[in-house]
Amino acid sequence: MSSPLRLGIAGLGTVGIGVVKIVQKHAGLLAQRSGRPVAITAVSARDRRKNRDADLSAYRWEDDPMALALAEDVDVFVELIGGDAGIAKDSIEAALRSGKDVVTANKALLAMHGQELAELAEGLGRVIRFEAAVAGGIPVIKAMTESLAGNRINRVMGVMNGTCNYILTRMESAGLPYEEVFEEARQLGYLEADPTLDVGGIDASHKLAILSSIAFGTRPAFDAVEIEGIERVSIDDIRRAADMGYRIKLLGVAQMTARGLEQRMSPCLVPADSPLGQLAGGTNMVVVEGDSVGQIVLRGAGAGEGPTASAVMSDVIELARGVRLPVFGVPATSLSDSQPARTAVPAAYYLRMELLDKPGALAKITTVLGDAGISIDRMRQYGHKDGSNVPVLFVTDRTTPEAIDHAIETLPKTGVLASDPVELRIEEV
Amino acid sequence: MSSPLRLGIAGLGTVGIGVVKIVQKHAGLLAQRSGRPVAITAVSARDRRKNRDADLSAYRWEDDPMALALAEDVDVFVELIGGDAGIAKDSIEAALRSGKDVVTANKALLAMHGQELAELAEGLGRVIRFEAAVAGGIPVIKAMTESLAGNRINRVMGVMNGTCNYILTRMESAGLPYEEVFEEARQLGYLEADPTLDVGGIDASHKLAILSSIAFGTRPAFDAVEIEGIERVSIDDIRRAADMGYRIKLLGVAQMTARGLEQRMSPCLVPADSPLGQLAGGTNMVVVEGDSVGQIVLRGAGAGEGPTASAVMSDVIELARGVRLPVFGVPATSLSDSQPARTAVPAAYYLRMELLDKPGALAKITTVLGDAGISIDRMRQYGHKDGSNVPVLFVTDRTTPEAIDHAIETLPKTGVLASDPVELRIEEV
Repeated sequence: MSSPLRLGIAGLGTVGIGVVKIVQKHAGLLAQRSGRPVAITAVSARDRRKNRDADLSAYRWEDDPMALALAEDVDVFVELIGGDAGIAKDSIEAALRSGKDVVTANKALLAMHGQELAELAEGLGRVIRFEAAVAGGIPVIKAMTESLAGNRINRVMGVMNGTCNYILTRMESAGLPYEEVFEEARQLGYLEADPTLDVGGIDASHKLAILSSIAFGTRPAFDAVEIEGIERVSIDDIRRAADMGYRIKLLGVAQMTARGLEQRMSPCLVPADSPLGQLAGGTNMVVVEGDSVGQIVLRGAGAGEGPTASAVMSDVIELARGVRLPVFGVPATSLSDSQPARTAVPAAYYLRMELLDKPGALAKITTVLGDAGISIDRMRQYGHKDGSNVPVLFVTDRTTPEAIDHAIETLPKTGVLASDPVELRIEEV
Repeated sequence: MSSPLRLGIAGLGTVGIGVVKIVQKHAGLLAQRSGRPVAITAVSARDRRKNRDADLSAYRWEDDPMALALAEDVDVFVELIGGDAGIAKDSIEAALRSGKDVVTANKALLAMHGQELAELAEGLGRVIRFEAAVAGGIPVIKAMTESLAGNRINRVMGVMNGTCNYILTRMESAGLPYEEVFEEARQLGYLEADPTLDVGGIDASHKLAILSSIAFGTRPAFDAVEIEGIERVSIDDIRRAADMGYRIKLLGVAQMTARGLEQRMSPCLVPADSPLGQLAGGTNMVVVEGDSVGQIVLRGAGAGEGPTASAVMSDVIELARGVRLPVFGVPATSLSDSQPARTAVPAAYYLRMELLDKPGALAKITTVLGDAGISIDRMRQYGHKDGSNVPVLFVTDRTTPEAIDHAIETLPKTGVLASDPVELRIEEV
């Protein structure tokens, strides 16, 4: 058996400790499967005295991750610090330059600086692996880069932020408003220090930008993702959507069209009985559509110590086995510009309005929709007391986002709306 | 760019033609992703004059697959002939011996002779890849061999025969008896020439034996799978199970226990709202449970030209990229004997009986169950006319298969059964 693959682990949060535990628990299994032992040489984190749930006494301690990145007795630099710049980026660059391969779970860094890092790594003959960066334990990076490599990918989509999915699921099951469930999630420790990363859709969009790059052979373009978070999803909309057979999910979708690459992250309706609609709680799901394979659905835990560490270890084992692939599946210099395009792919839309209780109100609304070229698939008017507002729901036929935008702009001019209309895309899944 | 990887394709049925189409359609994409062109040198099939849906004029034709296996201008022998012995096995062995790697979709061959072939290949420094052998386009072999390699696998299970799942789904949705839907499936061309391979659970068991081997590091042991097909699933049971919130699926389960490796393929009840329960029609699903990753669910088309060819191409691209792993993830000589064990893991069971309309009948039944140590979770007695038989359903608490077997043997001795009792395992999913 060959010499051990030596890891230096920078960052000893949940995931870092998870990796340490797997290396300790499964030494024999890892050696058998990798063809060589996997060993930890040194570790690094901010606070040495912090009580951690693993015995680290056998490893050299470095206060500075940069020392780990430069250490001569480390083959693979495992970056689990996080953050889209700063020491995470600096230490990865230093590790690559000093001849190390890199395994990271850092989605923000890859979404923002993936191109630069991939070119650096490949120029130096080094490898960066990042299975843990997207959808935790779900092996979506490997599936897309390797298993579906014989396909032209048509679309990739997914529910990739467990916290948002927990909030939306809990709002529906408990009938609670957003603010209350958000507070619950905060108290349960489900939210990032900056909760906008979760509920604002940023974290999920980082992941989408990485998947887009692999799917379409384009440079990662996080800035081009159209992002809307879940902050404005109301319990009313969740109930009304359920009435019509749908669930609301924070769904990321990337697809290549004749106009360019569309990447969107937004609350969408999906059929309640579809795999995405059935996804409850903190679980993640990624759906990939290829021209030969059709639709592949991958589901699993999107976060947490074990699942994320499992993904890190799959990268480590790959390196131990001597497998060396380009960062995004093809040489980084051959990735094309993504030609970002605003969403233009038609879809059905859900529209909810509160009408004033006036004769002819509904006629005015339907006239605006008709004039915008929008035809109605289903309409539902809810009971109301005389003089109170009239809740009305529409599910449109497939129409363009442009037509919907136009209608949303025009509708208030009818003078029969009690509040701003709500529109949500019904993604075809 | 390096020299092309040269394929020789033996077998030009649906899958073979699918592979030809991908190589022709995606030449540029394959070269970019593989780092070298992928080319077809020669092909072979039984009948040269047969009309096939692809232009084969650029490839040398060999009437004998053995000539392809020995050809000097072929790097990878793609075996798509099928069959658990004969020319498929002979030509693979010849290809390995003449220095070629092998890609195959042949589940029967791997389940029956995988150990022997893997040892031959690895002894010669050659590789056999078989992503297409299990669950069509679903990348389950790669997921288990590589992505989950940091986990001890606890259980792997799946619905892996689309024809059986189609038949069971259609029985429920159309309310038709087995025989009628079987005949429909035959007319639609969904059944193998020998339909026992499908409905007898053989084909799915081949796949399960392969997954077991990878999951547990054991020699493939198809003969040790306890197999029951779907022939005896009645529309009555499908309806009664639905009443209780379950669906019946032909489910394969492999799990390692203290007593040894349990492998079973049988019609089981699963909750109707679980991912497995929701699986309709010809789709496949594989569920893998690892000690770190938790539960991963993979879903997609389990058969058909595009999906299966996509899986073959993932193996081809892996070889083009120079990735060379042991056949079952670890060296074949290190695979252990599987210590086959009869199913002993406890589960809840579904029991259906027709009782004679006699006073005290139910008491006699429940006494037998109680004496066997089986407690009842739920019981349902259906309405009946005086003097006609009384349909009764039980869902038991978790109990051992041994206790159930004992009860099934003893129940007829009560003299109150109008027919043999039906028992189905309720697999925890």
